[in-house]
Amino acid sequence: MAQFSTLSEFAALLAAAPDVDAQALVGAQERNAQLTKPPGALGRLEELAIWYASWRGAERPSLDAPQIVIFAGNHGVCAQGVSAFPPEVTEQMVANFEHGGAAINQLAKTFGAKMDVHALELDRPTADFTQEPAMSEADCVAALLTGWNAVDASADLLVTGEMGIGNTTTGAAVAAALLGGAGADWVGRGTGVDDAGIANKARVVDEGLALHKSRVPLDVLRCLGGRELAAMVGAIAAARAHRIPVILDGFICTAAASVLEKTRAGALDHCVAGHLSAEGAHGKMLDALGKKPLLSLGLRLGEGSGGAAAIGVLKAAVACHSGMATFAEAGVSDG
Amino acid sequence: MAQFSTLSEFAALLAAAPDVDAQALVGAQERNAQLTKPPGALGRLEELAIWYASWRGAERPSLDAPQIVIFAGNHGVCAQGVSAFPPEVTEQMVANFEHGGAAINQLAKTFGAKMDVHALELDRPTADFTQEPAMSEADCVAALLTGWNAVDASADLLVTGEMGIGNTTTGAAVAAALLGGAGADWVGRGTGVDDAGIANKARVVDEGLALHKSRVPLDVLRCLGGRELAAMVGAIAAARAHRIPVILDGFICTAAASVLEKTRAGALDHCVAGHLSAEGAHGKMLDALGKKPLLSLGLRLGEGSGGAAAIGVLKAAVACHSGMATFAEAGVSDG
Repeated sequence: MAQFSTLSEFAALLAAAPDVDAQALVGAQERNAQLTKPPGALGRLEELAIWYASWRGAERPSLDAPQIVIFAGNHGVCAQGVSAFPPEVTEQMVANFEHGGAAINQLAKTFGAKMDVHALELDRPTADFTQEPAMSEADCVAALLTGWNAVDASADLLVTGEMGIGNTTTGAAVAAALLGGAGADWVGRGTGVDDAGIANKARVVDEGLALHKSRVPLDVLRCLGGRELAAMVGAIAAARAHRIPVILDGFICTAAASVLEKTRAGALDHCVAGHLSAEGAHGKMLDALGKKPLLSLGLRLGEGSGGAAAIGVLKAAVACHSGMATFAEAGVSDG
Repeated sequence: MAQFSTLSEFAALLAAAPDVDAQALVGAQERNAQLTKPPGALGRLEELAIWYASWRGAERPSLDAPQIVIFAGNHGVCAQGVSAFPPEVTEQMVANFEHGGAAINQLAKTFGAKMDVHALELDRPTADFTQEPAMSEADCVAALLTGWNAVDASADLLVTGEMGIGNTTTGAAVAAALLGGAGADWVGRGTGVDDAGIANKARVVDEGLALHKSRVPLDVLRCLGGRELAAMVGAIAAARAHRIPVILDGFICTAAASVLEKTRAGALDHCVAGHLSAEGAHGKMLDALGKKPLLSLGLRLGEGSGGAAAIGVLKAAVACHSGMATFAEAGVSDG
């Protein structure tokens, strides 16, 4: 269990986070060079496998126990009319997750992932950030802790997902505060608003940016974010503490992750970007974090769906790396 | 079993190939519109699932029995010094496939695919196409038949792969003859030749193009192709006959597939491009065929590896489509 009860204690934990295992890194690189294929012929799968090995601390790792954790939250900023769907849908979708009917349930089954859902005080939405901070420090810390404790230390891969009507606006506000620019640079169609809806979202973000001046990343999370974003921050940080590699999902997950990177450069080195979302500004966000997505299939659903869809790519990379014969073992001439 | 003993009989079979199931297509589109997600939020996964459903003839299909078939052949054109590896490697890699040590074996296991390997008269390479046609009609038909008969009619997805030292030159020659341009437009580094090696490959292709004037696609396959390319052509055609969707692999597989498209426009409608290969001209080849790759991870291994790596994406698409709850089933407000 994590020991923090303030945002600054959480920041201190990040500063103490482990780094890659240098010996496993070198061992994996050496193994990769001996496998029965022309050098580099597996392209990015080779890089991925070596990266995964270096975080797992094993020259020849396995990937058998992925965990998907979904956090759901409600947003006071919905009072500003930012979503095409009513806030009740957050709770309805949580029930859908629990009954196995959502996209993420099918993806979890497809890739053999354990899936957990955490509904974060859905009957107590965050405050409307155009009026006051979205969360108190206590609320923000509670959500970080929920996220941290949601991670199964025995998992060997983590995907974090979210559900929260209104949270593309929240994600855009966090991104704008941390990465620069105005609301219009970061808002998009979300679940399907029209051009007037986009303009409204930009106004809402700009009002939030004007009201909340601090650009300290954890203050930004508290004032402009939401419980499910804070929980993803906590979960991604916990994964680092447990040496569990992470596949980031799309727009909202990446906005949350940027809180970590801006708090401590390199805090996302154990994370890979699962996909490029169709939510307009996601590509710009990934660029700012130096992350190149594994998939680009036009998803814009959230729920961790883009991250989960990429589990197969990482499984493929690890399976090739750890399962292939070397030239010597197979009696193949190495050119 | 297929009934053809000449290239023109094979061409006649293509003309009689089945098309999509229009009823399953409409049913799948209607189902997709009712699933618990904003319209279009699963992006290309939605298109893929509907495409798959339309070929399987089922509104709500499953994808449980993928088959990977690998064909290996040797090439007389290796006498021209076109590869960084000696021709013996073809047979050595076949043994590696049979013992489970190659990349494709790990990918097959990862995605639950059955894998078959067919070595095509490795001790009798095709002729050097700079001197004479690579194959007689009888040899070409025999390879097409091997490919056709290699497809398991009970499979629900096919990936064709190949192994054959020298076959990026063969693939480039087939592409140049069918899609236009000269050798230099289509040759690349293959398993790792240097700049002089690339120039040599371009010369070899140009000599082949000059010697063999027919641009009838099946003549091109016979004169400039190889047994493993012909077998992939036969297998992809057989998959169509059985309504089995196909994921194309990289440069050599796509070159072979272009023989079908150029013989009958639309002959690859049951195929999706698994990935964009790092072998230079693959993107141009996919553009010519109107195919957009599912993955772009810098692979250039062959063996069906890029096609197999994409099985997870298609499984994800089908699982979401067939497994998700509708708005009505889940009691979720649909905006």
